[in-house]
Amino acid sequence: MRILWYNKDMIYLDHAAATPVTQKALDAMLPYFTELFFNPSAPYLPAKHVREAYERAKDDIAHVIGAKGADLVITSGATESINLAFTASHGKVLVPTTEHAAVLEAAKNRNHGLINVDKTGLIQLDDLRSQLTDEVDLISVSLANNELGTIQPLAEVAEIVRTVRQNRLERGITMPLFLHTDASQALNLIEISVARLGVDLLTLNAAKCGGPKGVGALYVAHGIKLHPISFGGGQERGLRSGTENVPGVIGFATAATESKKHLAGNRKKYQEMSNYLRQVIKNPTETHSDAPIVAQNSEKVKHNLNSPTKSTQNSPAHSIPEPIFLGNPKKQLANFVPVCFPGLDAERLVYKLEAEGIFVSTGAACAANKGTKSHVLAAIGLSDEEIAGSLRISLGSTNTQDQIMNVAPKIVEIVRNEYIRLAERSLK
Amino acid sequence: MRILWYNKDMIYLDHAAATPVTQKALDAMLPYFTELFFNPSAPYLPAKHVREAYERAKDDIAHVIGAKGADLVITSGATESINLAFTASHGKVLVPTTEHAAVLEAAKNRNHGLINVDKTGLIQLDDLRSQLTDEVDLISVSLANNELGTIQPLAEVAEIVRTVRQNRLERGITMPLFLHTDASQALNLIEISVARLGVDLLTLNAAKCGGPKGVGALYVAHGIKLHPISFGGGQERGLRSGTENVPGVIGFATAATESKKHLAGNRKKYQEMSNYLRQVIKNPTETHSDAPIVAQNSEKVKHNLNSPTKSTQNSPAHSIPEPIFLGNPKKQLANFVPVCFPGLDAERLVYKLEAEGIFVSTGAACAANKGTKSHVLAAIGLSDEEIAGSLRISLGSTNTQDQIMNVAPKIVEIVRNEYIRLAERSLK
Repeated sequence: MRILWYNKDMIYLDHAAATPVTQKALDAMLPYFTELFFNPSAPYLPAKHVREAYERAKDDIAHVIGAKGADLVITSGATESINLAFTASHGKVLVPTTEHAAVLEAAKNRNHGLINVDKTGLIQLDDLRSQLTDEVDLISVSLANNELGTIQPLAEVAEIVRTVRQNRLERGITMPLFLHTDASQALNLIEISVARLGVDLLTLNAAKCGGPKGVGALYVAHGIKLHPISFGGGQERGLRSGTENVPGVIGFATAATESKKHLAGNRKKYQEMSNYLRQVIKNPTETHSDAPIVAQNSEKVKHNLNSPTKSTQNSPAHSIPEPIFLGNPKKQLANFVPVCFPGLDAERLVYKLEAEGIFVSTGAACAANKGTKSHVLAAIGLSDEEIAGSLRISLGSTNTQDQIMNVAPKIVEIVRNEYIRLAERSLK
Repeated sequence: MRILWYNKDMIYLDHAAATPVTQKALDAMLPYFTELFFNPSAPYLPAKHVREAYERAKDDIAHVIGAKGADLVITSGATESINLAFTASHGKVLVPTTEHAAVLEAAKNRNHGLINVDKTGLIQLDDLRSQLTDEVDLISVSLANNELGTIQPLAEVAEIVRTVRQNRLERGITMPLFLHTDASQALNLIEISVARLGVDLLTLNAAKCGGPKGVGALYVAHGIKLHPISFGGGQERGLRSGTENVPGVIGFATAATESKKHLAGNRKKYQEMSNYLRQVIKNPTETHSDAPIVAQNSEKVKHNLNSPTKSTQNSPAHSIPEPIFLGNPKKQLANFVPVCFPGLDAERLVYKLEAEGIFVSTGAACAANKGTKSHVLAAIGLSDEEIAGSLRISLGSTNTQDQIMNVAPKIVEIVRNEYIRLAERSLK
């Protein structure tokens, strides 16, 4: 996969915020901007060809999640998909406290309840069960969290949903119960099958898996009645009016298909890289000969890891607290390394890393931009100080092993220097 | 402007349905898919550059309509813009019967009244005045109709709005009154100034002026409170959540700016072409030496026009009814030639023209696709038979004078042959 670069030397570790459009996806989109620009609802043959390509692209996207094109509603992104999914509810919705702003805000505009999570971000199933009263008709749980990478036990939630449905049926209660999952963050890392997950509604986002911004999809199981949130020409079976974004959907389909094809290989690659990063960050003075990533480059690693250690050998290294890796180590997206450096200011780390050409974030971009503290990190019980010291590192298609081996010691050095600065300041 | 073609020989006369993305717009978009893919809300410098480019693009779009970027909400297209605009209303909305489906459907989901139009599609101002009760707080009138090209007297509507506001103020009535216009179809043909038009809300659509599909904007005057139709990360001042479609907005800005730059020249060009088309269609046996378009190619015109006449000189030409040009000849977009051939089946004409490489439509693409008859043509009082015989020809950036001189006699010939076929059938 060829990626054009803003800066060839940059190391981008914020794939959870945005991914570049893959070359294949871009190549597939291009003709639909120009020679195949026709309105897919127009009556002449070239427009009908565009309609066919559009429907085929929907089929391809659906295929990736084990569904068919007719089950998808194409939207302008995950936020719209989520808001459309929530129109299935006429009662109460339940959502975990760690959901993306789109889920939380959509919930807050309705009768809703918040489900607690544990310290690793996993939904507390007992809390879900206790709040699952007969007025609840929608549960929305992300497949994987966008700040922690924590993978939720969707199959267990689906099992609870089935039990409640059965119980309602037996008691003659007609209130339906639907399960929605926001799978935006997971599409390129977890094999998704709507049937296996047992969900009724599923949100996808093109921009998180190598497709273009401004395109999303909502899978809708048969028999679920949604209500359009805007009205017009009646496209997408009346659920989503407006001329179809043909190039966007073609790009989405190409990226999603590619993503699925390389899923296992990429997951393995990202897992090795993130394991390596964790080990170096955790034990900065060790050589990491046991990390899989090292096998191919052991000389280089030793060199890289030794130099920062040397440069700071006279510093008060004993005062450096252990980093805290966030999320659930056993149920986590392979590309996520969310980490807290207690006492540090993560925003300073972001800028210091940026000066080295390394781009990470402190959390969800939309929250970060508003300067608010992460509701996700607060929900898993982090103190304000811990939240302030937390970075979200998310690997992806643009990363190579060499990059990660280059980055790891730099993170260690910058973190150590920040702790030294704080220690020196407190001595003054 | 270089346009890539589906088929070099095709003559596309359906620019009201869709326009190809201009090469300049596409070139401007491309880097934002790849090397500048960053989430504009991310904290590092390259992402901030993307944010700046995005805001600059919004400024550019706003500049085209005499506004500033902060007054715009970027949406996924005109349909969403219109639906968002309608959230300004908590009372009753008034819309003409000939509005686009997005306006009519958004109105139908609220307390609303329909304003009559005259036979040319012009809003009947007396009907507007008589329905303007104190419960009305929003009037939505398109700047130009998407099937007729009729340009509405927005300034006169704005004057009525001002009078009513003044009157309400004098009577101590606090109900506001806002004016929204859907300018989607007009951006590349009419000089638009929100101040001069006197509108409070204005909808734009990138895909109708050489920008990409899936992007629109809503101009919102100061002091108007809208309500988001979907909720999330709080982008676009909380009115339109979701990661910004950066490439789409860059493309929109480039196309809109280009469009404004060439507006006067294009309008003149389209006017000459559409005048020529009308003359040939109306008087197929004359040579059109007075048409401006002919001046440069008089030999060719004579040749082209004579040949179809010769080939049918023994046919019952006297039985051919006059074509009816639809819309308001004095207040019409320069690129529109909507025409009714009484008694003919316009769908047959579409397919016969297509066989000659000429692409036209029978009306709005979204309506045509559903096989419903045009509500616009019904609203201006056409009979079902007249509606069935109506074509929408809309010129645009892809057309040349040579194309139009080539097309005109072909339309005449196909129409004549259809009438002959009908006449012969009725004789059997």
